[in-house]
Amino acid sequence: MADDPLPHLLPLPPMRWNAWGIPSDARPLSKGIVDLLEAALGVGGGLGPAPGPESVELPPTRLTGADVAALAAIVGQEHVGTEPGDRLSRAGGKSTLDLLRRREARQLAPDGAVAPGSDDEVAAVLAYCEEAGVAVVPFGGGTSVVGGLDPETGGLRAVIALDLRRFGALVRLDEISLLATFQAGIPGPRAEALLGERGYILGHYPQSFQFATIGGFAAARSSGQASAGYGRFDDMVVGLTAVTPRGVLRLGRAQKSAAGPDLRQVFLGSEGAFGVITEVVVRIRPKPERVVRQAWRFEDFAQGEAALRAVAQSSFRPTVLRLSDEVETGVNLATTEKIGAGDSPGGALAVTTFEGAPDEVRAASELAARAFEAAGGAALGPELADSWEAGRYSAPYLRDALLDAGAGCETLETATTWDKVDEVKAAVTEALLEAFAENGTKALVMCHISHVYPAGASLYFTVVYAMAGDPVEQWAAVKAAVSQVIVEVGATISHHHGVGADHRRWLAEEIGEVGVAVLRAVKSAVDPKGILNPGKLVP
Amino acid sequence: MADDPLPHLLPLPPMRWNAWGIPSDARPLSKGIVDLLEAALGVGGGLGPAPGPESVELPPTRLTGADVAALAAIVGQEHVGTEPGDRLSRAGGKSTLDLLRRREARQLAPDGAVAPGSDDEVAAVLAYCEEAGVAVVPFGGGTSVVGGLDPETGGLRAVIALDLRRFGALVRLDEISLLATFQAGIPGPRAEALLGERGYILGHYPQSFQFATIGGFAAARSSGQASAGYGRFDDMVVGLTAVTPRGVLRLGRAQKSAAGPDLRQVFLGSEGAFGVITEVVVRIRPKPERVVRQAWRFEDFAQGEAALRAVAQSSFRPTVLRLSDEVETGVNLATTEKIGAGDSPGGALAVTTFEGAPDEVRAASELAARAFEAAGGAALGPELADSWEAGRYSAPYLRDALLDAGAGCETLETATTWDKVDEVKAAVTEALLEAFAENGTKALVMCHISHVYPAGASLYFTVVYAMAGDPVEQWAAVKAAVSQVIVEVGATISHHHGVGADHRRWLAEEIGEVGVAVLRAVKSAVDPKGILNPGKLVP
Repeated sequence: MADDPLPHLLPLPPMRWNAWGIPSDARPLSKGIVDLLEAALGVGGGLGPAPGPESVELPPTRLTGADVAALAAIVGQEHVGTEPGDRLSRAGGKSTLDLLRRREARQLAPDGAVAPGSDDEVAAVLAYCEEAGVAVVPFGGGTSVVGGLDPETGGLRAVIALDLRRFGALVRLDEISLLATFQAGIPGPRAEALLGERGYILGHYPQSFQFATIGGFAAARSSGQASAGYGRFDDMVVGLTAVTPRGVLRLGRAQKSAAGPDLRQVFLGSEGAFGVITEVVVRIRPKPERVVRQAWRFEDFAQGEAALRAVAQSSFRPTVLRLSDEVETGVNLATTEKIGAGDSPGGALAVTTFEGAPDEVRAASELAARAFEAAGGAALGPELADSWEAGRYSAPYLRDALLDAGAGCETLETATTWDKVDEVKAAVTEALLEAFAENGTKALVMCHISHVYPAGASLYFTVVYAMAGDPVEQWAAVKAAVSQVIVEVGATISHHHGVGADHRRWLAEEIGEVGVAVLRAVKSAVDPKGILNPGKLVP
Repeated sequence: MADDPLPHLLPLPPMRWNAWGIPSDARPLSKGIVDLLEAALGVGGGLGPAPGPESVELPPTRLTGADVAALAAIVGQEHVGTEPGDRLSRAGGKSTLDLLRRREARQLAPDGAVAPGSDDEVAAVLAYCEEAGVAVVPFGGGTSVVGGLDPETGGLRAVIALDLRRFGALVRLDEISLLATFQAGIPGPRAEALLGERGYILGHYPQSFQFATIGGFAAARSSGQASAGYGRFDDMVVGLTAVTPRGVLRLGRAQKSAAGPDLRQVFLGSEGAFGVITEVVVRIRPKPERVVRQAWRFEDFAQGEAALRAVAQSSFRPTVLRLSDEVETGVNLATTEKIGAGDSPGGALAVTTFEGAPDEVRAASELAARAFEAAGGAALGPELADSWEAGRYSAPYLRDALLDAGAGCETLETATTWDKVDEVKAAVTEALLEAFAENGTKALVMCHISHVYPAGASLYFTVVYAMAGDPVEQWAAVKAAVSQVIVEVGATISHHHGVGADHRRWLAEEIGEVGVAVLRAVKSAVDPKGILNPGKLVP
């Protein structure tokens, strides 16, 4: 946020307040994309560059002087901020709706930001807020794409962002059990760097990796691009500490236990609504001695899907295993650097990575290659897989450039069992195209299998479209229609983006009345006054 | 229960009401064991054979004629039983305390047994019981060893066993996703047989396999002896249906999801206290084309433990991976047929099984062998592993013969992280020996690693001792002392036996006040009148 003159007291989160990522990594649209937008979607005009902070209208903070003094007494004066920069930089996540709203003059934001430095301080902040009637939105990297950070008060008189930036330590490295204890506010790259110095990796690389935090990974039930081998974040977590308004919960005496329900799985995915996750114990691995990448071409998505399924159901899995459908392969979306370039391999492109000890990598890659060949795949060599890997964090930057140019772009995802992958993919694609057609716009829908399991897979959709009318209303209507279809076709409302504010309605349909009653009961038990992240998760 | 003249209306569960298993598989003590008991523990005298049913005093049922008529109207007259056989055969589980109590004249038992045939009937039974103030203990195979089936009323006026025996179907086999949908009452061997006809296996073989049910595996968060490869039962479950007093919960649209907390993990391990699990969707695998067993000898437990850890932390795992300590190896407890025989290999014996496609088995077994050799292990060939496999369901039968002979025998287990395995093993062993010494008796404590994970392992203890004084009080005191040590040393109160009535007190210490509040809140939300399995799980 070096280019942002907004006044602030707390250090600002690394991401720009009104766009993805950091300015130096912003990406202009390639000629290929511009041509594609015009030819395929009739995109013209556009929103132009996002308005600067000078035009922002921010309502005055609802925190009183007494609030600020009380919070400062807990965490220290320098860790409480109510300046516009403190507030706007923690005003929400980074969905397309968020980015569109950041372009409006009038902004919503929390009334202030507070950065405690210990569990005791978190507990004291929660106690004060409960007493004072102030809502609390836990804030890590600010990368939610489901409205998980919306500054809602839930009927209380104000709302603060509770920034976990001071929870930045690697607390313990257990090289016997291969477990690392991290404070929750540590960003992905920093966690990997600290482990790397000691010869280990975590292996969790979601799209948000560069900015999101360990605690955020846990709270949002994150899944990284190497989940086929390293596991989802919920697989990695062996222990966690959560500070709730009713006390501190410490879980994880063993990786697995039969001591009743697994309460870790209640706080994983709790999205700040049940407690503030302050510490996480995660499985680590020795740095892989060998990394082998390989791209594969399949005749079509169905052929590739069968191949991925065969490998996912074997006991020898790659760390990365992805498959783009024909449309996504055609526009080279799998390989960010070549988006829109005319040299797509055609068919359906799969990307694989094998990591580990040389013996393991050799055995796993040979067995997978045999399965891929048996399914009809052709090995393309490592290049396309390498370029996917090199560019994998770049895609979100494109969205801002697309918005400038008048094209909307958003992603959504779901998961289902293998027997329903085709049905769900078709239903979601059709729902997207129909919803756009209804308001007279064209859309390009691309899909890839992003994560695989023995019993099923996730489907990750990217849609690019010509903006029309009120862009917030346009996308909100499409998103509602497609969410309804996802739930009706029997898939889950989210494989790894989470629930937040945006999916809450459909979560209720997914888990039913009893499921909702369970979530509400847990919420009432640990946060009876409803101060924690109101309006998120719990229907 | 062929030799049991107790009158009954419902079909009886297969296990004897007052001993483990079926009479034809009962095992006399070998000469080796008898000698061992006398020499090592000074065992003499004994309880003699368990008293016959003619001497049983059973309080009259507290169900009224109106109760029986109402329940019969829901499930059919032939599915409600209040005869002594109906009640005693569902009076509890099969812990040593249970077996000791079955030898007393005065018996506690549920006031009747009811066997509904559908979710609707379960819901109607729960609704009636809630209205009428009758507690309900869901009953599958009756194999609990933690008091999970104790016929407690929880302050209500009566208690029934809700027998799931009529939930016996394989509902669906999804050969694409490799998922099988089972009704909850189907016993392990029947489930495997149905899958076997179609070329698949489940791979879940806990000690209770021969009698326990699919629903019981889910409710108790069971773990099988092949969990290193096939996973724990909670890993296998992708979907489940639970009928609660507040409605039916259906979960599992995808193997993994980020749609909030994983509510499956709240009902897995809920031990009948949150709802009646009536259907479970589980992962299955193709029948292994190849099975390779191999026993290994290590110089001592520490050497073997390091070897197991190396394999558990690699990506190529056996399906079975166990390690007996020096004492257990010395008495040949790992190979049931040879218990007490003088031909132990000495040192610490490990048993491994590799199952799967030939390529997978070859790669995994070679890599594991390399790790074992590097750690100092010596391959012994398959024989000792084969005999472990052949006799693995026999051990529980010995307990009854031991009781007859005056020796108590019980098992208990925990799990911890690898860095604490030695500390926990020593602390538990010492606690056991000390607790017996306090009441002047000797005990033989054996231990094995029964389940491995990348971050840790379970420790499974078998203790044999000379009974003295009131045998129920004797063991209850020891068990309380060792449970306290387990919790204080930071391990979990149970790796796979569960909580039931026996571990409830220590669960509270393990999960703390906030964890207890969460469990109580869920309980209140789905079972506000507290009819479901009172006195179990929820502290």
